[in-house]
Amino acid sequence: MTAPQPDDLWPDVRPEAARRLMAAAVTSFAERGYHATTTRDIATAAGMSPAALYVHFPAKSAVLFAISRSGHERMLAMVERVVADDPDPVVTMRTLVERFVAWHAKRHVVARVVQHELAALPPQEYEVVADLRRRTEQHVRDVITAGVSLRQFEVPDVRTAARAVLGLGIDVARWYTPTTRPAPTELGRQYADLVLRMLGHHDRTD
Amino acid sequence: MTAPQPDDLWPDVRPEAARRLMAAAVTSFAERGYHATTTRDIATAAGMSPAALYVHFPAKSAVLFAISRSGHERMLAMVERVVADDPDPVVTMRTLVERFVAWHAKRHVVARVVQHELAALPPQEYEVVADLRRRTEQHVRDVITAGVSLRQFEVPDVRTAARAVLGLGIDVARWYTPTTRPAPTELGRQYADLVLRMLGHHDRTD
Repeated sequence: MTAPQPDDLWPDVRPEAARRLMAAAVTSFAERGYHATTTRDIATAAGMSPAALYVHFPAKSAVLFAISRSGHERMLAMVERVVADDPDPVVTMRTLVERFVAWHAKRHVVARVVQHELAALPPQEYEVVADLRRRTEQHVRDVITAGVSLRQFEVPDVRTAARAVLGLGIDVARWYTPTTRPAPTELGRQYADLVLRMLGHHDRTD
Repeated sequence: MTAPQPDDLWPDVRPEAARRLMAAAVTSFAERGYHATTTRDIATAAGMSPAALYVHFPAKSAVLFAISRSGHERMLAMVERVVADDPDPVVTMRTLVERFVAWHAKRHVVARVVQHELAALPPQEYEVVADLRRRTEQHVRDVITAGVSLRQFEVPDVRTAARAVLGLGIDVARWYTPTTRPAPTELGRQYADLVLRMLGHHDRTD
């Protein structure tokens, strides 16, 4: 398992102690699951006392929420940037899948926590994350719908297609390891090719 | 969360008490994760004493192994049946994805445990399950390779394509709920269409 790098993952989180706690929590949640991890485990792994943890996070669920929200915000921001960059649905979908897949491969440890521990969030926090997910999924549907209008894509059901696109990327975090080949960027390219075919684009480029 | 039905899931497991313990364990593992579940939790949920659990399973990990091996054996047996039934790679792939996806949707609670708690298995038990996974994946690769030889499929990388096919199906268990639409069988059909396109088949049927 690759230890997450706090500065790299959460450059905006201040102070540095909070970042260290989030990184320690990711490792513990990924190894033992959220429920079997105590605030003491997290604090100890971060080289701090449990009391020091509570200065930054009121509860274990607040650490999970910070990790989960950050991951989902990052994915939504990435998708919004890609959508804004180029009006062509094919270019947009290719870039979106490349980046989404590469992130889930490179950041597979944090991505597993972000994607698989949702059910452990308290209701209000879950709603915040669910909203970020809905907005991300809506962008993907919009790109597919735009491609269908331009006859670049052809899909029987836009909702199912969007689920499949995101699901392919999310699933990468489940099986990717530091020794997996191809590297994250190349895997992203291969998956983007597969997704464009899946959306009915392949036949128009031959 | 839909409670798993022991008789339906594990018709071959005897005696009935062992099946009941496996079903109780699936529910507990799915709710709290493997590490936060105790043998006492499992026994209590099955209406038994911890001592009664040990009559059937020497440890908590033995219950997880029984659940995981059974799920993986079932998937491998399904794939082997489908492969033996029809020599045509397109027909085989369609049936295989339909059944694989429908199972992961219908049995999403047990499938989540089967697919997401692998890391909690002891090394020897993990190896048994990893071997079942490798054999399943090899069948999927063989079907793709056969389709490529017959010019029914066209993929840049057979290994990546096989991962994507299985990953799409496995991911369904992550998000499927009892109220999700479409129903498991219809979702299987839609995903089979998407997979055949992804494998480069779509352009040859137009």
